Amino acid sequence: MGEPSGVGGEIALKAWLQRRDLALAPFFLVDDPARLKALARSLGLNVAVETLDDPSQCVAAFNHALPVLPLRTEVQAEPGHPSGANAGAVLDSIREAVALTLDGAASAVVTNPIHKQALMDAGFAHPGHTEFLAELCGSQKPPVMMLACAALRVVPVTVHQPLSHVPKTLTAELIEQTGRTTAKALKSHFGIKNPRLAVAGLNPHAGEGGQLGHEETRIIQPAVDALRAEGIALSGPLPADSLFHPEARRGYDAALCMYHDQALIPIKTIDFERGVNVTLGLPIVRTSPDHGTALDIAGQGKASPASLIAALQMAAEMTQAAGTAAHG
Amino acid sequence: MGEPSGVGGEIALKAWLQRRDLALAPFFLVDDPARLKALARSLGLNVAVETLDDPSQCVAAFNHALPVLPLRTEVQAEPGHPSGANAGAVLDSIREAVALTLDGAASAVVTNPIHKQALMDAGFAHPGHTEFLAELCGSQKPPVMMLACAALRVVPVTVHQPLSHVPKTLTAELIEQTGRTTAKALKSHFGIKNPRLAVAGLNPHAGEGGQLGHEETRIIQPAVDALRAEGIALSGPLPADSLFHPEARRGYDAALCMYHDQALIPIKTIDFERGVNVTLGLPIVRTSPDHGTALDIAGQGKASPASLIAALQMAAEMTQAAGTAAHG
Repeated sequence: MGEPSGVGGEIALKAWLQRRDLALAPFFLVDDPARLKALARSLGLNVAVETLDDPSQCVAAFNHALPVLPLRTEVQAEPGHPSGANAGAVLDSIREAVALTLDGAASAVVTNPIHKQALMDAGFAHPGHTEFLAELCGSQKPPVMMLACAALRVVPVTVHQPLSHVPKTLTAELIEQTGRTTAKALKSHFGIKNPRLAVAGLNPHAGEGGQLGHEETRIIQPAVDALRAEGIALSGPLPADSLFHPEARRGYDAALCMYHDQALIPIKTIDFERGVNVTLGLPIVRTSPDHGTALDIAGQGKASPASLIAALQMAAEMTQAAGTAAHG
Repeated sequence: MGEPSGVGGEIALKAWLQRRDLALAPFFLVDDPARLKALARSLGLNVAVETLDDPSQCVAAFNHALPVLPLRTEVQAEPGHPSGANAGAVLDSIREAVALTLDGAASAVVTNPIHKQALMDAGFAHPGHTEFLAELCGSQKPPVMMLACAALRVVPVTVHQPLSHVPKTLTAELIEQTGRTTAKALKSHFGIKNPRLAVAGLNPHAGEGGQLGHEETRIIQPAVDALRAEGIALSGPLPADSLFHPEARRGYDAALCMYHDQALIPIKTIDFERGVNVTLGLPIVRTSPDHGTALDIAGQGKASPASLIAALQMAAEMTQAAGTAAHG
């Protein structure tokens, strides 16, 4: 469901309308069926909503209706105005989706955007969606965020940090953990037998041999050496500015980036609409559109389902690749 | 000339060969004619070299030969192996080009890449090419670096700094100076009557209202307000990751970026081959290809003249726009 006052419902309805053109794998929402029926009506979208008793009914329903597994509570949401009153329903939707996927009743979780502040006001104490999912999955290791589109996969080693904290936060251990999780996931969930990682430097020109910073020689290079010793194919530290043009991208399967914007600037420049946020290192497949709740356009029919559709497609591909990897 | 053991000579010869197809404005090299003749021969490039007595002969010569204003000294260079022995000639070429342009004998300076280390070993004490040019021009204000291609113009406010120094180096005054010089140059040399600047934040999500860093509220926003009060149209501070996709780019004429890679990642991702380095705030027009000496491929005939050609074209356009602005 995600935040019900955001665009999540609208983009889910629109994604379902494209199920045949795009041959989408069946999906169901964990949401309030009455709210989605009303939303479809108000947006003029010709979508039938079918309430499921059980996820196993999803595949049969998907062709003629948007399947919805109902939440225990009704959801009353005003577009553009998140309310703490829905926090319980938002969290229940996530909990239920994770539990069903851990049980094998669903193949993957695709999360619609949440509004962190509304949840926090209602007592939610996790720094974000991903950390909550990791807890629900009982993960010991911190999960890794990957942003992916058809042309590029990037993994920020540090994520939601002020830029001035990045040099202090960056450690060889963190780079190694992130690189290890990434390489493993590329094998297990992306069908890449021998994944190649490119590692970006932190400083301009990757430090220019120490003239423009020392993190490359002191932190990044040792991490690269350690990962290489484990048999992971990787290059770097490389100057970040020359790492993302089409010819450079042919040289690797994912780029490890040292901070948020180093990863997100190139992917959002290349493909703003269809980026997918993928969480690596969980026991389940989890993807998410790479945008927020878009409260400013909620309820207006303007939201593009492109990123949610890309997230649904990537979840299906990762599930399939994982099946092949497990049995291959 | 630039560093004679790099690709500068080769790309100049190749650029001249495209003078008709691309209707290039006449240019001449300040270089050693004998070395360029030998280089053309060794690369199998059908380029006649004409030695000029005076820059005024350039236009007449340009159609049938590459015009070269000779240096006082011969240049012996081994491709790929810079030598301090040529440092004097490299610096003379720059001095002469600047002097001729200040005098009006040439319209603009286009600099081929230099090899800083070889010059420093011979006693060159400037941090880079641009600072040397500023001194030769007698500039009081620090010059501003712009990177430009057809799709995007970016201006890094801090440039060759380790990333950990960026938050300390960034001041409202520096942003204001840079924004002022940029807006002025867009008017005077790019034919843009009412330039619009976009200002990037420093932190992820432009600080997210202070949750991910305070430089936006403490440093960048005050600078934006001050520039706006001077009548400059600008937006920001904006999240850097959403600033460079095609739709976002339509909203501004240049993006002020807070650090090197924030500016260079998007432009090199969008157009790796044809980026041009433009120096703003000098009394002369100066452009440069956006690549180095490429010692690893020097002398092999592999170097692409695309960026030098773009630099020559941009210098001609800027000269023309400046003439129109001055008389318009």
